[in-house]
Amino acid sequence: MSELFQHGTLALLVPGLLEGTMSIQDVLKHGDTGIGTGQGLDGELIVLDGTAYQVNGEGKVTVVNDTDFKLPFCDVHFANFKLLKAAKNLKMTDVEKTVFEDVDYRNVFFGVKITGNFSKVKARSVNKQDKPYPSLTQTADQQSVFNHEDINGTIIGYYSPHIFNGPAVGGFHLHFISEDKTVGGHLLDFELADGEISLQPFETLNQHFPVDNQEFMSHDFEKDDIASAIDYAEK
Amino acid sequence: MSELFQHGTLALLVPGLLEGTMSIQDVLKHGDTGIGTGQGLDGELIVLDGTAYQVNGEGKVTVVNDTDFKLPFCDVHFANFKLLKAAKNLKMTDVEKTVFEDVDYRNVFFGVKITGNFSKVKARSVNKQDKPYPSLTQTADQQSVFNHEDINGTIIGYYSPHIFNGPAVGGFHLHFISEDKTVGGHLLDFELADGEISLQPFETLNQHFPVDNQEFMSHDFEKDDIASAIDYAEK
Repeated sequence: MSELFQHGTLALLVPGLLEGTMSIQDVLKHGDTGIGTGQGLDGELIVLDGTAYQVNGEGKVTVVNDTDFKLPFCDVHFANFKLLKAAKNLKMTDVEKTVFEDVDYRNVFFGVKITGNFSKVKARSVNKQDKPYPSLTQTADQQSVFNHEDINGTIIGYYSPHIFNGPAVGGFHLHFISEDKTVGGHLLDFELADGEISLQPFETLNQHFPVDNQEFMSHDFEKDDIASAIDYAEK
Repeated sequence: MSELFQHGTLALLVPGLLEGTMSIQDVLKHGDTGIGTGQGLDGELIVLDGTAYQVNGEGKVTVVNDTDFKLPFCDVHFANFKLLKAAKNLKMTDVEKTVFEDVDYRNVFFGVKITGNFSKVKARSVNKQDKPYPSLTQTADQQSVFNHEDINGTIIGYYSPHIFNGPAVGGFHLHFISEDKTVGGHLLDFELADGEISLQPFETLNQHFPVDNQEFMSHDFEKDDIASAIDYAEK
């Protein structure tokens, strides 16, 4: 079984430790598939087949491959998904039930890929913030929400065991990109009309910390209500 | 900077998922230094210079290198400690303060090694449990406690960031072994008369899951009060 590489933690986004601490080139050495965000929460990233796509605050998609593009947080892995099943009229709220009725993956990290035609996609993206960086909930309050209907595309995301809520988003954390690579974002809701669900369980989480970032190293997380902020901004 | 390898999670010990899922030989491929426990909470393990010592429920120390010796949980790494400082009359409760007045390591995992003469050591060990395995707090209620005075020895352990309490023990988790390798255990209290503190920060946590253990894979952790049990049994 394969490995999930996580740079940074979801927790460090909560108080606004949004400095980019790993370049997109270095991120891609650890995987060809994944999700993340840029410095200052610069959009929602989705990595697919080795290409990193950024959905910016206006909902526009661009490929990012500039050495200067750095990320405070990402999850990537090398894709080796296995088809779980075909699905029709699948709502986002039913993903957990439909996955766990077939596989016992609740206590491990796994990758999720859902492809097909979506009758509804509700995705958000955020605008790049400048220093002094606001908190995650402050940025989420200014998010842009995009609604799409009858759209082909791909969901890439991860399930994290609930005891890892804080380091990661406990449960599912899913990003979307359209087949024509023009729209996407962090998923708030969707309905898959007709498509397929594939999964990739991980034996190992490689949790990498931004040890050269002094602000991260010296931050006191005890004042931050991490779980509430993740619930508010990411679920 | 180096890596910490963790097999299993502290959380899985809480409901008594105590099946050994990695052999001591495989564990030692990931480090020459560390802590752990055997199948059924079979004693307190301390790995030092590539040798795994087991302190059993009677407080006796033996070297474990049998292929059949399997562990449900361990933390190991390859030692490359750096001296932090000499210390005199250091109480266990003051370790956190004395470490963090010198280094900003609160938000990363790091290894701790404390050597010297101890005026007081209070260590516990547990007896191997049989199936059906009891919970961690039930086993802790039957622990044996050993008190030593004026003893030379080595503490090996880890600090884990508090957002990882559950996967690990948030804060310090320290084991002890005497210089003559006759006594040791999981530390409940100590006072270092005269010695040295060394640390080794980790850039990466390699969190490995026992994916072939069906009992772990299908367990519902939502019923387990992980944080309270860790506080009760490990701190």
